[in-house]
Amino acid sequence: MKISARNVMEGTVKNVETGPIMANVKIEIKSPGVVTAIITKESVEKLGIKEGDTVSAIVKSTEVMIAKD
Amino acid sequence: MKISARNVMEGTVKNVETGPIMANVKIEIKSPGVVTAIITKESVEKLGIKEGDTVSAIVKSTEVMIAKD
Amino acid sequence: MKISARNVMEGTVKNVETGPIMANVKIEIKSPGVVTAIITKESVEKLGIKEGDTVSAIVKSTEVMIAKD
Amino acid sequence: MKISARNVMEGTVKNVETGPIMANVKIEIKSPGVVTAIITKESVEKLGIKEGDTVSAIVKSTEVMIAKD
Amino acid sequence: MKISARNVMEGTVKNVETGPIMANVKIEIKSPGVVTAIITKESVEKLGIKEGDTVSAIVKSTEVMIAKD
Amino acid sequence: MKISARNVMEGTVKNVETGPIMANVKIEIKSPGVVTAIITKESVEKLGIKEGDTVSAIVKSTEVMIAKD
Repeated sequence: MKISARNVMEGTVKNVETGPIMANVKIEIKSPGVVTAIITKESVEKLGIKEGDTVSAIVKSTEVMIAKD
Repeated sequence: MKISARNVMEGTVKNVETGPIMANVKIEIKSPGVVTAIITKESVEKLGIKEGDTVSAIVKSTEVMIAKD
Repeated sequence: MKISARNVMEGTVKNVETGPIMANVKIEIKSPGVVTAIITKESVEKLGIKEGDTVSAIVKSTEVMIAKD
Repeated sequence: MKISARNVMEGTVKNVETGPIMANVKIEIKSPGVVTAIITKESVEKLGIKEGDTVSAIVKSTEVMIAKD
Repeated sequence: MKISARNVMEGTVKNVETGPIMANVKIEIKSPGVVTAIITKESVEKLGIKEGDTVSAIVKSTEVMIAKD
Repeated sequence: MKISARNVMEGTVKNVETGPIMANVKIEIKSPGVVTAIITKESVEKLGIKEGDTVSAIVKSTEVMIAKD
């Protein structure tokens, strides 16, 4: 199954903390590789983002899914 | 500024493709680290997710933000 | 009230499980109809998505809202 | 590959409209099923959501991914 | 129609910029109100978030929907 | 640190309710200013959104992050 989500990062589960409804899962990523971010053209211009820049890719943990074979 | 988003991955911008409204930015992540995923308890149980498992962390690119100093 | 979200699927609540902060709600959808997905052009090309394909629309449950009259 | 996202709806691609960066894909969902929504306990209480209610499940199209075998 | 999304901010459309697939809409919010954020317990602890703190609520623009009567 | 997220609203924490995994944080926004929404061109057309319209910006609370100096 191929998925349209551009960011698929393989790793090992380090910890699973489960509550009544939600769970917090920690995954040590083996080789992250390239992350794709879709942001507004406006943000690219206002932050002056260009090739070679050092930046951080930021993801809220509620937006991270997990796949397992 | 500290942010509540648990996933902050440092890297280098490899490519910026800009359209009329949105932009597609590729970031080569420097150091693999630990990714936090908030999923349902139900998913943990149905996928049988436990410490030591090999899994993939999946993130839709529209959910990735960029920060720059 | 009309909402910009393209996917509005009517159904019946089958179960409500409530925790201290979050709740897991199951909704049996009557007639789903057509779902709209906004993905990257890159994903369309890499998955070779075209009219007539059998695919799955995937949505993380934290992204589903509920409206009630 | 099993995925933690609770909502996986099978269907047929009806239309693909591609722009410079993003694409709008329409999918006719075959069989209605059960949708899972994770909302706040506060919302369940304020909307008085309970079993048997007629509701709408609402999803912004930027939150819908596509998987293809 | 009542919606489970906790943040509904009334305002006036200041600008609409439309591209082939997406649109960037600016809305001047009339009355400041209370915003609800669902973050991890871990983030509350690591940022030491407590009543009285001055903070910023941050929302990616792809997560903002628009409703119109 | 500048962030690509277009919506950064300063305010004061009014309440913090913490559960085993997640937390519900209320923030009284001082001066909301202008909110940016990225929606589909299709939605702009179907809702007839134009300058001067009175609308509501809607955000699911799981999509709101918090930053603190």
